[in-house]
Amino acid sequence: MAIPEIQKAAVKTGKGPESKVEVKEIPVPKIGPGQILVKVNYSGLCGTDKSFYRDEWAAWGGVMRESAFGVAGHEGAGVVVAVADDVKGLWNVGDRAGVKFLASICRNCEFCQSGDEIFCVKGKKSSLTEPGTFQEYVATDAYYASRIPDGVKDEEAGPVMCGGLTAYMACRRSNVRPGQWLVLPGAGGGLGHFGVQYAKALGMRVIAIDGGDAKKELCLKLGAEHFIDFTTTHDIPTEIKKITTYGAHGVVVTAASKAGYETAPNFLRQGGTMVCVGIPNDLTIRSAPPPLVVVTRKLNIVGTYVGNNSDVQEALDFVARGLVKPLLTVGEFKDLDRFMDDMETGKMIGRAVIKIGA
Amino acid sequence: MAIPEIQKAAVKTGKGPESKVEVKEIPVPKIGPGQILVKVNYSGLCGTDKSFYRDEWAAWGGVMRESAFGVAGHEGAGVVVAVADDVKGLWNVGDRAGVKFLASICRNCEFCQSGDEIFCVKGKKSSLTEPGTFQEYVATDAYYASRIPDGVKDEEAGPVMCGGLTAYMACRRSNVRPGQWLVLPGAGGGLGHFGVQYAKALGMRVIAIDGGDAKKELCLKLGAEHFIDFTTTHDIPTEIKKITTYGAHGVVVTAASKAGYETAPNFLRQGGTMVCVGIPNDLTIRSAPPPLVVVTRKLNIVGTYVGNNSDVQEALDFVARGLVKPLLTVGEFKDLDRFMDDMETGKMIGRAVIKIGA
Amino acid sequence: MAIPEIQKAAVKTGKGPESKVEVKEIPVPKIGPGQILVKVNYSGLCGTDKSFYRDEWAAWGGVMRESAFGVAGHEGAGVVVAVADDVKGLWNVGDRAGVKFLASICRNCEFCQSGDEIFCVKGKKSSLTEPGTFQEYVATDAYYASRIPDGVKDEEAGPVMCGGLTAYMACRRSNVRPGQWLVLPGAGGGLGHFGVQYAKALGMRVIAIDGGDAKKELCLKLGAEHFIDFTTTHDIPTEIKKITTYGAHGVVVTAASKAGYETAPNFLRQGGTMVCVGIPNDLTIRSAPPPLVVVTRKLNIVGTYVGNNSDVQEALDFVARGLVKPLLTVGEFKDLDRFMDDMETGKMIGRAVIKIGA
Amino acid sequence: MAIPEIQKAAVKTGKGPESKVEVKEIPVPKIGPGQILVKVNYSGLCGTDKSFYRDEWAAWGGVMRESAFGVAGHEGAGVVVAVADDVKGLWNVGDRAGVKFLASICRNCEFCQSGDEIFCVKGKKSSLTEPGTFQEYVATDAYYASRIPDGVKDEEAGPVMCGGLTAYMACRRSNVRPGQWLVLPGAGGGLGHFGVQYAKALGMRVIAIDGGDAKKELCLKLGAEHFIDFTTTHDIPTEIKKITTYGAHGVVVTAASKAGYETAPNFLRQGGTMVCVGIPNDLTIRSAPPPLVVVTRKLNIVGTYVGNNSDVQEALDFVARGLVKPLLTVGEFKDLDRFMDDMETGKMIGRAVIKIGA
Repeated sequence: MAIPEIQKAAVKTGKGPESKVEVKEIPVPKIGPGQILVKVNYSGLCGTDKSFYRDEWAAWGGVMRESAFGVAGHEGAGVVVAVADDVKGLWNVGDRAGVKFLASICRNCEFCQSGDEIFCVKGKKSSLTEPGTFQEYVATDAYYASRIPDGVKDEEAGPVMCGGLTAYMACRRSNVRPGQWLVLPGAGGGLGHFGVQYAKALGMRVIAIDGGDAKKELCLKLGAEHFIDFTTTHDIPTEIKKITTYGAHGVVVTAASKAGYETAPNFLRQGGTMVCVGIPNDLTIRSAPPPLVVVTRKLNIVGTYVGNNSDVQEALDFVARGLVKPLLTVGEFKDLDRFMDDMETGKMIGRAVIKIGA
Repeated sequence: MAIPEIQKAAVKTGKGPESKVEVKEIPVPKIGPGQILVKVNYSGLCGTDKSFYRDEWAAWGGVMRESAFGVAGHEGAGVVVAVADDVKGLWNVGDRAGVKFLASICRNCEFCQSGDEIFCVKGKKSSLTEPGTFQEYVATDAYYASRIPDGVKDEEAGPVMCGGLTAYMACRRSNVRPGQWLVLPGAGGGLGHFGVQYAKALGMRVIAIDGGDAKKELCLKLGAEHFIDFTTTHDIPTEIKKITTYGAHGVVVTAASKAGYETAPNFLRQGGTMVCVGIPNDLTIRSAPPPLVVVTRKLNIVGTYVGNNSDVQEALDFVARGLVKPLLTVGEFKDLDRFMDDMETGKMIGRAVIKIGA
Repeated sequence: MAIPEIQKAAVKTGKGPESKVEVKEIPVPKIGPGQILVKVNYSGLCGTDKSFYRDEWAAWGGVMRESAFGVAGHEGAGVVVAVADDVKGLWNVGDRAGVKFLASICRNCEFCQSGDEIFCVKGKKSSLTEPGTFQEYVATDAYYASRIPDGVKDEEAGPVMCGGLTAYMACRRSNVRPGQWLVLPGAGGGLGHFGVQYAKALGMRVIAIDGGDAKKELCLKLGAEHFIDFTTTHDIPTEIKKITTYGAHGVVVTAASKAGYETAPNFLRQGGTMVCVGIPNDLTIRSAPPPLVVVTRKLNIVGTYVGNNSDVQEALDFVARGLVKPLLTVGEFKDLDRFMDDMETGKMIGRAVIKIGA
Repeated sequence: MAIPEIQKAAVKTGKGPESKVEVKEIPVPKIGPGQILVKVNYSGLCGTDKSFYRDEWAAWGGVMRESAFGVAGHEGAGVVVAVADDVKGLWNVGDRAGVKFLASICRNCEFCQSGDEIFCVKGKKSSLTEPGTFQEYVATDAYYASRIPDGVKDEEAGPVMCGGLTAYMACRRSNVRPGQWLVLPGAGGGLGHFGVQYAKALGMRVIAIDGGDAKKELCLKLGAEHFIDFTTTHDIPTEIKKITTYGAHGVVVTAASKAGYETAPNFLRQGGTMVCVGIPNDLTIRSAPPPLVVVTRKLNIVGTYVGNNSDVQEALDFVARGLVKPLLTVGEFKDLDRFMDDMETGKMIGRAVIKIGA
């Protein structure tokens, strides 16, 4: 396959309120030692991408570096079109590959060697320090790209690289055992709909919270046992206790809002676990209730942050088996702005994914 | 041994700012089915006792019930002087017994059957619903009293029933593995000095934080590898990183203060665990940093709340083996007020313990 | 409800080859303190019951004591008809109750207090030291009987008390995570058919091994992903590797045979776990392969032995939810001998259960 | 530092009973991409080395491949003298490095990505497929060599690479918690003396078994709480119960003998764990007792097999902290034969280590 010199990419221009995303022509990257070149077919659109393109995180330092050339995206799926000499055999041209937020690791530091590579002291991150997957070709670390199994399409694999993975790991971090209760506020959303399915696949019983009949129908279809409509339910903790007797064993907070973090602990029984996923920009919002509550109810409040390479394979495997079906809204580069608007207003259905180069 | 009809007890009188502790004569309790009568020799004085006698928790409902007759105390150690017919053989007169915060459990609910009896739906609690151990004789649940092993004196066993147990479980809840780092702010205090010793016995490496040379000497003698003096160290997180490279694996917050909860997360490496023990009265204080920190550093914030009956035996066993030596300030009923003052002003050395009936 | 003085029971008579089971009239037991009287409606027939009635275990000491009066049975389900004064309120007449192999515990020893009550130093065992559930009325420990949830019929609850519980705990002891592979030899049998369903409910992927098309159809219907017919498959380990690449993560050995224990380790990948359930009478049969294999493949060989009271409730809950449906062959006292013959010849379909008193 | 063309190495010659070890001159290896050249200062002498040089494992396929050139050794410690271009910066000339049994991994397979790299599908093993560390210079995988921390001498670091690591991981695999009992038969030997110290550092209580007063003195000095002399103690299980009440929580079998495997389960309480380390040549010896024992005592029999790269760093760290002090018998190439004789007759004191090139 001939590799062109020039490609299209979705590039951030401007700063602060002036910032926006533009489709530009930029050079196709050259691979260095240890790298493969992946032709990206689809890339999921994560809330983080919106934050990068719209410069929402400047206040607390979460900003693209020059080295990322303004290209966001970390849910890429495509095909290998070139392999550096020193990693030939590890990958072959034609292999299907996924590219994630964590783009490259040193494989040598304490964190890499203990399976917590997300904290690699030399880790490179798509969008942050490396150009992301909203470009037609991405050069990436051969030892860290993910293999996409048969039975998972590119448009499905992309969103699993971050959204699916995050939902999967959030369920696992909850420590909820099969047969126990997990509450998923925002269950009908981009992360939530993954959460319902992964939780069910892990044997958990799911109480979905969201608003409206369409969401209800979706959540129940995906495997939730109960649906609580927050638009019509006055006292959600009481409703949860009716179902669970003492409260749920776990809750995953995907909403990046004060209300999300304030209410979630009330859904839990003693000894329960609240998994933090959503990141509010407002740094006065705290993850946990007062110590009185955390102590006397022996709660666990835990953060989850993507997952390691082995976790990604597991997350993909559930999709390959048909137990998790990503709900997708597919578009093209030209739809990026509209999609980001929809994400802001809560209108996005499932996870947005962009056909790259179309 | 003849059991008298009347005994001395430390009783709370008055309410709110008027509340104080008085030594009164009250009837010796009669045992019912399933109970033993314990002659209390020593009872530790916990911060909670101060809060009960001085009515500090009325605002959030943590108040003595009528049924407790105004008698606090939940770190009692003594000897069995009577045994109800239906539990003869389980205990014999002359056996040594300890009485804890959790005084009686149903042994039948979901929590009791899964080792989380502290949440027993019918649980009875010393000071809260039952008269506590600041009386000469206490009637208590034969199935829930603790056996005191040889090698542990009564004045040592008392403070282990809550203070030692809490410190032991806090160390365990930290999930710090042998060879990893645990930070203990307030390491020279009543809970802290237990924490240093239990952590060391569990194979952890301890960084003690406290103020002044006397505390330094104490902490190092008890087994801390490093001492950080907060009165002279400007930047404690940086100091901890010098020792640990990436930060500690765990930290236990025993201080019931805003500063304690605000600074502790900064001592941790990614993936680290903050154990919440101290309970500030100010309910606007939160246990955890913003989600941005909890998520992107994958922190764990966990509450710990006494322990189960098996945990108590383990905590006692470390004392029996001489690996943990409680540092005690021993007094009598008449010293209760002065001791509570000393606890408030931070002058108490180690754990206060009262010789009952003296 | 009037409680009669005399009841029917299935009683062992004779010894060794002379031993057999006879229906006799014996006195209805009187309850003592801490006990309830349960009218048994159904009792499952476990392989152990056969061993007791046919005296198969005399060689290695597993014999009924005098105190058991020759009455086996430890999978009883029925209704409470009397409650001792000291446990009134804990149980009410009319409550549904289950009686298990472990009939009574001290709730006081190290094992009881750490959730391993099966090793209670004063534990009483149905059939072994106590009359079992093949009688119309059984007096049992109020604190140790199991509550039968709505949605589980008595004839289903009985076999869960031991067979279902054992299968459930075997799956859990395998440490196979959701999405990983568990092999179940004898998957179509009394224990095996429970195992397939519990494993699936726990999110595991099941490879069932058994013989014949009827078993194949059953196993696939119950949730197995693959069926290997041992009557037609020459090389089972190779077949398992075709499915799993490196071998399965776990295997449960329910067969009490040399072949069962010899072949199972060959089904495992490195680091895998073999769960031992079946107990061959031949004590020269060993549970594990040579150290060379155990060490260089880092295998785990673990025993599982019923479960604790909390485990039973979980096992019942999966039945109540309809995720596990016991396959039963129902009979009466007069069928006991025939059923035991069928168990010996492998003709029993699912789990045998006896309608008591019919 | 000038790197010579020719070096001395301990090379196996002959086969079967004819096989012996000879010091020969062989070429210094050239490093390829991804490799470093380590000048070996010391290499520990493991039982496995003896088996390779004396061809003891031919029967069951554990034989050196041609590619290993007859050079055994997998406990090497020395200094980096050359670094391939593509890994410059990862290592620098002058860095201290350790070389282990597992010499190189693919970092890409399922096992590598889940921390079980010992089962890497492309793993290379010192002595087996690669020339080992009984040569002056070894070329090895830059990503898999171990960093030797300050405070650990080369002659100490060598034996930790396999012997220390194995003992450390055996203790961890035992799942014995701090304060619980671990039995170490052969506690005074090469692996055993490491085990005593690691177990103590992990907070376990150690019962050492060995023969003679010198061993007793050694074991108690290293931290064992009890010593049982097998030459004078008739009934070891009873002795262990005297100390532990119900039996020990764990036992590590380092002896490659039938007696070692037959007796160890008798030292355990219910629920205890036997860790298999020693590998008898006689493949009729089994790792575990009959299912009757494994099941009704709920035992765990687990294999342990070196450890991963992160485990090695932990094992070294305990030595650096002075908590584990290897007991060494130091020699030169010329002593290899004599040392192997001493190992066979049980005369070797501690772990043998060879000063390479001397």
